[in-house]
Order: sequence, then C-alpha cells, then structure tokens
Amino acid sequence: MEVSPDGFAAPAVTINDKPRFPWRGLMIDSARHFVPLDVLRRNIDGLEAVKMNVFHWHLSENQGFRVESKKFPKLHEMGSDGLYYTQDEIHDLIEYARDRGIRVVPEFDVPGHSTAWFVGYPELASAPGPYEIERKWGVFDPAFDPASEKTYKFLDQFIGEMAKLFPDHFFHVGGDEVNGKQWDANPKIQEFIKAHDLKNNEGLQSYFNKRLEPIVSKHGKSMVGWDEVLDPTLPKDTVIQSWRGPDALAAAAKQGFRGILSNGYYLDLGWSAARHYAVDPMSGAAANLAPEERARILGGESCMWAEYINPENIDSRIWPRNAAIAERLWSPQEVTDVASMHTRMELIGERLEWIGLTHKTYERQMLQRIAGPSTPEEFAALTTLASVVEPVKDYAREETATTPATSATPLNRLVDAIPLESAEARRFSEMVDQYLGSYCNDKEVAAKLNTLLTRWAENDARLKPLEDRSFLVNEVRLASKSLSVSAQAGLNALNHLNQFMYLRDEEKKQQLELLKFLEAQMGGQLILAPGPAIEKLVEAAGTLGTCRVPSS
Amino acid sequence: MEVSPDGFAAPAVTINDKPRFPWRGLMIDSARHFVPLDVLRRNIDGLEAVKMNVFHWHLSENQGFRVESKKFPKLHEMGSDGLYYTQDEIHDLIEYARDRGIRVVPEFDVPGHSTAWFVGYPELASAPGPYEIERKWGVFDPAFDPASEKTYKFLDQFIGEMAKLFPDHFFHVGGDEVNGKQWDANPKIQEFIKAHDLKNNEGLQSYFNKRLEPIVSKHGKSMVGWDEVLDPTLPKDTVIQSWRGPDALAAAAKQGFRGILSNGYYLDLGWSAARHYAVDPMSGAAANLAPEERARILGGESCMWAEYINPENIDSRIWPRNAAIAERLWSPQEVTDVASMHTRMELIGERLEWIGLTHKTYERQMLQRIAGPSTPEEFAALTTLASVVEPVKDYAREETATTPATSATPLNRLVDAIPLESAEARRFSEMVDQYLGSYCNDKEVAAKLNTLLTRWAENDARLKPLEDRSFLVNEVRLASKSLSVSAQAGLNALNHLNQFMYLRDEEKKQQLELLKFLEAQMGGQLILAPGPAIEKLVEAAGTLGTCRVPSS
Repeated sequence: MEVSPDGFAAPAVTINDKPRFPWRGLMIDSARHFVPLDVLRRNIDGLEAVKMNVFHWHLSENQGFRVESKKFPKLHEMGSDGLYYTQDEIHDLIEYARDRGIRVVPEFDVPGHSTAWFVGYPELASAPGPYEIERKWGVFDPAFDPASEKTYKFLDQFIGEMAKLFPDHFFHVGGDEVNGKQWDANPKIQEFIKAHDLKNNEGLQSYFNKRLEPIVSKHGKSMVGWDEVLDPTLPKDTVIQSWRGPDALAAAAKQGFRGILSNGYYLDLGWSAARHYAVDPMSGAAANLAPEERARILGGESCMWAEYINPENIDSRIWPRNAAIAERLWSPQEVTDVASMHTRMELIGERLEWIGLTHKTYERQMLQRIAGPSTPEEFAALTTLASVVEPVKDYAREETATTPATSATPLNRLVDAIPLESAEARRFSEMVDQYLGSYCNDKEVAAKLNTLLTRWAENDARLKPLEDRSFLVNEVRLASKSLSVSAQAGLNALNHLNQFMYLRDEEKKQQLELLKFLEAQMGGQLILAPGPAIEKLVEAAGTLGTCRVPSS
Repeated sequence: MEVSPDGFAAPAVTINDKPRFPWRGLMIDSARHFVPLDVLRRNIDGLEAVKMNVFHWHLSENQGFRVESKKFPKLHEMGSDGLYYTQDEIHDLIEYARDRGIRVVPEFDVPGHSTAWFVGYPELASAPGPYEIERKWGVFDPAFDPASEKTYKFLDQFIGEMAKLFPDHFFHVGGDEVNGKQWDANPKIQEFIKAHDLKNNEGLQSYFNKRLEPIVSKHGKSMVGWDEVLDPTLPKDTVIQSWRGPDALAAAAKQGFRGILSNGYYLDLGWSAARHYAVDPMSGAAANLAPEERARILGGESCMWAEYINPENIDSRIWPRNAAIAERLWSPQEVTDVASMHTRMELIGERLEWIGLTHKTYERQMLQRIAGPSTPEEFAALTTLASVVEPVKDYAREETATTPATSATPLNRLVDAIPLESAEARRFSEMVDQYLGSYCNDKEVAAKLNTLLTRWAENDARLKPLEDRSFLVNEVRLASKSLSVSAQAGLNALNHLNQFMYLRDEEKKQQLELLKFLEAQMGGQLILAPGPAIEKLVEAAGTLGTCRVPSS
C-alpha cells in the first residue's frame, strides 16, 4: 500500500517469484553486547520485510553467556552480569519469529570463545580457574578440555536441554578461533593427543567435533559449525558456515557437506551495500562445482558482530545494507545492477523505519548528545559532517584505537553515531560520474555539485564553536577541517571544468597529494567518504579532453 | 550531565529553588483516542523532567470508556472497542508516576460526555436506549438522569471501586458541557425540576453535584470539577478547574473554593509557546484577590484534548510547548522574558528526546509516508514546506474541514505530521526583528534571511513532482505555492532594504494585498507561519527611514 495521485493504492498484479537459496539468514551476536528483546523483535520484523528466513542467534561468548539454563544455572547466573534471556522469553521470541516465517538457529560456541561458561564451571576448562567474564575484545585462551569425559557429559546434558528449548532442526556449535594455548600448556592434554594419535591441536579439535556431532545428532539436530570444524571424516549431515570465503565453501561441498556463506557478509566491517551485493555464494571455486555439489550450498548469512553496537545504533549497522544481502540471496545471480539496487534499498530503507526499525531516526539523538547545547546552525554543521564521514573499515577500529576498547567503553562518539555507509557521499559520487559522463555539459548536476561542495567547504567554520565546547566534537576537528579543505579542492576542480579549463600537471599533482594527506589525517577513527569522488574530479580537471564543447 | 571541553561534566552548584504553585499538571484525554501505556509512560517521564507533578487522566467520554470496572464490566466491555486499561495496568502506571513524583488524578466525566457509559447501561441515561459509542466529535445529548435514584446508587458503587484503584486524594467528576436536550425532552425530569424547585437545567445539574459530592467525599476523596460545577452552596472542599478563564477562577476563590487554571493552556489549540507562557493563573480578576483567596489558587494544568492525536504525533502536540507552561507554574511571576524562555525550551526539547519522547523524531516517518517513494531532493522540499506551515489554530480545524472528522478519520495528512508551532518561522521572525533593529546594517543576518527566503522561493518547483504522485502532497499544493510566492515578495523587500531603497506606496500596498491573499488561500488546513514576519519586511521596505547609513 502506498500513496498515489488519487489516494492509497495497492497495485493489482500477479507475482511470480521464488528464492534462489533456501537459507537466507542474519546472525546477531547478542553475547559481546547484550541485545534487548524489543531490539531483536524489530530486527526480526526487518528480516520478514526483506524475506530472509533464518535468525542465527549467537548466544555465548567470552564476554557473556546469555541463556537461562535450568540444568546448569551457574552458566547464566555467573556468566552474564544478569543480562540473559529467560527460557520463557526465548520461547516467545521463537514464536514471534515463526509467525513471520523465520527460523531461529541458536549458537553455543565451543570449544573456544567460552570464558563466560567457565566462570560458573571452571572444571570444564583446559586450565585451572577461577575465571572471570572477559571485558576485552579479541581471541582468548580459555577452551573446553577435549581430553576430559566430564566435558562430553556436560555438553550432552546441556545440549539436551537447549535442543528442547530451540525447536529448529539446526544447532550451531561455533568451533571457531581456538588458539590452543591452554591445550599446549596442559601436559595431560598433550599426552592425550599422543595416546590417540591426533598429531596436533587441530587433530584434537577434530576429535572433539567427532565426539560432539553424535551428541547433537542424538538430540535430533543437525550440527552447524564455522569453517574450522570441517574435517572429511565428520558425518556428512554437518553444515559448514564459512567465514573464510567461497573457496572454503566449495571445498566443503566437494567433500559432501552442506554450506552457508558468511565471508563477505560481515555487516560490522563497514563495507558498502554495493560491495556486499557483489559477493555471491556461487562465485570463485563454487562456480565450477558439479550440480549435486552446487545443491549443497544452502545460501548465506550476514553477520552482526557486536563489539561496537548497542540498542541505539545496532539497527543502523544492520540496515539498510542487509537488504542488499537479502536480495543477493533471493534474486537470480544475474541481477547485479548496482544503481537499481540502490533505488530499491533507499525505498526499503524508508519502509523499514515505518515498521519500527530506527536506523535513520536514531542518529539525531546521538548527535545531539555529542553536540550538547547548540544553536540550530551549529547542530546543522555537525549533521553535515556526520553525513559524509564513515567509520574506518574492516578491523581498523582496533588498529587505530588510542586505548583498546572493552565492553565497558561508551559508544557515544561520532564514529558510533554515524551510519557505516554515507548515502550522501554515494549520491555525490554518482553525480560526479554523471557530470564527467556529460563531458562537463550537464549544468544541472554541476549546480548541485557546486551547492554540496560549497556547503562542505564552509562547514568547518560553522562547526568551530561546538569544537570548543564539546570534547566529542573536538575529537573530530581534523576530520571537519579535512572535509572543508578537500571540498575547496573539489570546488576549484569543478570551477575549472565548468569553464572548460584544465589544471596544470604540477597543480593536479599538488592537489591530489593534498587530498591524500587530508584523508590520512582525519582522526576520530573516521574516513572521508566523498574523498575518492573529489579525487576523481581533480584528476579529471587535470586531464585534457575531459570536457567537450557540445555539438550544436 | 552534559558534554564539555574536557569530557562529561556535572556543574557543582547549590540550587535554591521552589515551585510557585503546588499543582502543576498535564491532562491527557485518552478517551477520544485511546493512548497506549508506553506513550503515557514516556510523557510521565517528560512531566518529571519539567517538574510537573500532576497527571490528570481523562478516562471517559462519549467516544470511549477506558477503564476496566469489575463491578460494572459492561462499561469497558461494551464502551471501549476493546481499548481500555486493565486495573493491573492502571496500578502499574500509578506506581510508575509515583516513582517520578507525579500524582495521578482520574477523571470520569458526568453527567454529560457520557455516551460510552450508556452502551452497557442505558438505564442510567435520561432518554431510552439503545446507545452506541459515539464516532463524531462535538457536544452530544446523552446525560445521566439526575432525577433517578438508580443514578446515585450506581455512582456510589462505581466511585467506591475507582476510589480504591486510584489512591490520590483528588477525584475529578468532569461536569462540563451538558446541553440539556435529553432533560428537556423527558417529562419525568421536568416534573422533578418543578417538584424540587430547581428552576431550570442548571439548577438540576447543581442538585446532581450536591448529591455527587457526598458520595465522592464518603469514599475519602476531594471532588474536582470543571467550571460548570461551581455553585456557592457546594461544600468548599470542591476544587474548580477553569476552562473558561482566570476571572472564573477568581470568582471561585472568592466563594471559598480552591481552583486550577486550564484556560490558556489548551495544547490542542496550536498556540505558540510564547502565548501560553504569557498566561498567568494570577492575572485578570485573580490579581486583586485577598491573600487568603490567592492561596486557594492551586496552580494550573495544560490540557491535551484528543480529537486529532494518535501515538505517533501526540508527543509533538504536548512538547516542547508544555515545558513553557511548566515553567510558568514553577517560576516566579516576574520571569517573563520570552527570548530567554525559548532558549531553555529548545534545550529541554532536545533532552526530552533523549529520555524517550518522540516530538522531533516522529515527523520524518510521517512525512515519508506522505511523500511515498521520492528522491532526497523531493523529500527535502516536503521537509522545507513542513518546517514553515502550521495547522490552523483554535477550533478552525472543525470549521475548515471539507467533511467532518470522526474517530475513524486517518491522521495521515501534512496537518497531522507537522508540529503545532514552527520553530523555523519563529527564528525567521527573530532574524527579521534583528535586521530591522540594526536599521538594515546587520549584513550577517541579512545573508541568512536571503538564504532562507531563496530556499522557500525555489521550493514550490522542487515539490512539484511529489504533488503529481501523492494525493497527500497534492492537498498542500496551494500552501506550497503560497510559501514560494510570499518568499519572493520577502526577497524583493529584503533586496530593496539591503540597498537602502524603498517600495513606492502602491507597490507596498499591492505586495501586502498579495501576501494577505496568499495567506487566505493556503488550503490543507494550514497557515503560513512566516507570513507576519514577511509582511513586516514588506511594510518596512515601504517605510522611509527604516534603514540608516551607519555613522562612521
């Protein structure tokens, strides 16, 4: 239903459509940061709207164990800081998801990523306790003891309890990133490796998985695990979720395992929607699989890892980019036009707000707290800056941190308040392409570029008073300066092009070096999203033949 | 706590402060439109933030009876369309308010405004049933039968039940707007009036109130009623809430009654914060009361009547203007500087969003649904128009409706989506005053006025595509045209003044007539908020001596 010239309208059509893959999921890590149930519910509404059908719920981590266990109550009592889901709440959430055509696949990550389990049950670990809930981010040493029968007895009972709570046929056991340090340091475990001819820690983890699979299976479930669980001798009922890439996925399919792609769909890495959209589960080695092997690739899952999210900004980390991944997993492989995808994504982005998601409306409040008391003009300057910067990509947030972040770090900085992809910068880039594609003759788009660049060039002066009053704005003063100086360079290039004049070579070189320098000294863990498009303008302004006198 | 140059800070100060009036309330009508509990809770948070201490809950109307009654279950079962508060929910809300220092005073309006009661209990009315829940807005005929002992027996039992549910000492019985038509038409009631020497319907309502007061009193409460209950022979424990004005309030105080002012504080009428701020409970006849009479004026209450509100826009109808009323009721009478109040109101307006109110963030979603699929530029044009129009004031919404609104009328038009007071227009008006106060020499403010007027002048062309695609935008096409043509007139005046040139008399006259014409043909139940300030510019541009060459 949408507004039309004559009232509200629903088009009368016949829809012939079906999904390309049967497994189209989103994983939310509610272990590193606890995610309240209402936030999960509105995101499940979002999954329904984009026709995803799996909610993969990452429930245990070094930083927290988030499920009430009646058999082993010290798991949630001691491992969660009181932030866990009761079994009643989980039951309700599963019903809520089921009503929307969405399955809930729980993940309890073993044998690594498991510090929080050992706070209440240190005897399950490979090194003596006591253990405390981990507050830092990263890969840590604690791991279950695969050489102890206590481990399997515990997991049998625990999985038995959880298998009843979660009705879905799939049960995720994690299995990723065991650094092996506790195993190396434990002579009993090393002896066990030798006695069972397991060769090394990898062999030991294989042994662990081969003990685990029959337990999961006995409780009526198919086991899912991350790449690391892959071992040709595991029962073929196991499903491999690949965080390493489509080649690993293809290898699994060749060995007879079903697989799900998540590499390329990590929402926390800040990739553009267009980049996620280009990732296909059937690319790379998977493109050459035989038909029966191809059928084993069930689909894909986007992943929302939770180091830097809270209830306020999580929606903006998932949406609208997750809609592009949802389309990739639903639509035919040959549907790849990015401009057309962006049109749909902007539209669905608005609709998702109407059904309760907050990925657009959240920003204003966060920016207001960053600004503190401010005039409408000062606040507009902060909003303008926020519209064209993005957080640093991939794992650069760790690499560029002045002090390492922990689970207690407040997420109240500009880097936390802005979306991971700047829609404004994307549109600017499209306009630059349109302008250059017209050989500098599209005067309408030239005027729009001029308006934007002028606003950016003048923005730093407008933001100045807030930089003096708020330490959170002060933190981004270099980024603000970079925006204004870069925009000035862009304006200079645009003015040349508008008059069919060109930059001399040394001018171009100097301008491009300036832009590179500005991008490198942004600060605040930010990048300047329109940077590449501004460079393209300068490059074009220094290239004879960019503009052409229109034929009359 | 707020952001500072060096981190977050709480100033170390000693606060010497106390409220001027003990009764500082907000009434919410949750009867005409049902208001969900979460919406009430966030508004109670707002009351706490502005130090109001009474939530007056208007719970019954012709259009709905909203409270579960265990004694008379047909009240909520047949009178609410299923939209009522359970006793458990009410208990929780009262606890929630109490934790925030806010009392909850319930209102059950009798003998008029009572159609919804009679759906389940027609025998209480003054004319035979059956009755249906009223869907229209206005004053209606149904009223309790004051001549029947059944009425008092019923009210005794009902008030007894409600007196236990609502622990506050005050109990509001309404008493307003009985049109008397059912009484006129009932020979038994007319006979009763004669037999008891009550003279007329007013005498009959007085009799009703004098029977009602001992019932309220017997259940441990003090009775509150609207103006109409005032009668010198009522027990002095009664409190009068005045919707008629401070003179009526003073009259009540002189007769020994306590009183609360609501006239001048009706939030639904769309008055500016400045206009509400100027209303003082001690003004008019109240200014001349003797000290013991003054003490009877307990304070005031803003009123949110609910013909045109829903959970989406209600916050924007209450906030931030209610903060100005809260300040009037708390601060000394001589604190009246409007500019200073506006500064505080803008700041508290932001903070109220942080605690969960949605008076700013709600607008984007409503505008997006009005726009339908749209480009960022088209949407910006709608946002610009929305920022400078206001709904028609007072009761003009009824007078200008093409078809009368009912409780089923969708609240999805621009008039429903915009705030009742345009902050942008207010700032524009302040800038015009600043510019004229500088005798046309403040070039900075002249440039800002030029930017705003230019954007408005160009806005109609930008909105055009949406007018063709959305009937809800099309409805406001005249308003959009009026904005652009008015802004063009303003620009023309500003350009004259900037060059110290003047409009000829006939030019000025023609321009002012044009502006009046444009304001009169806005359509869409809207007014053009910057209209008076644009007129002022034109007037000034036609007045020799407005500008002065600066002394060097």
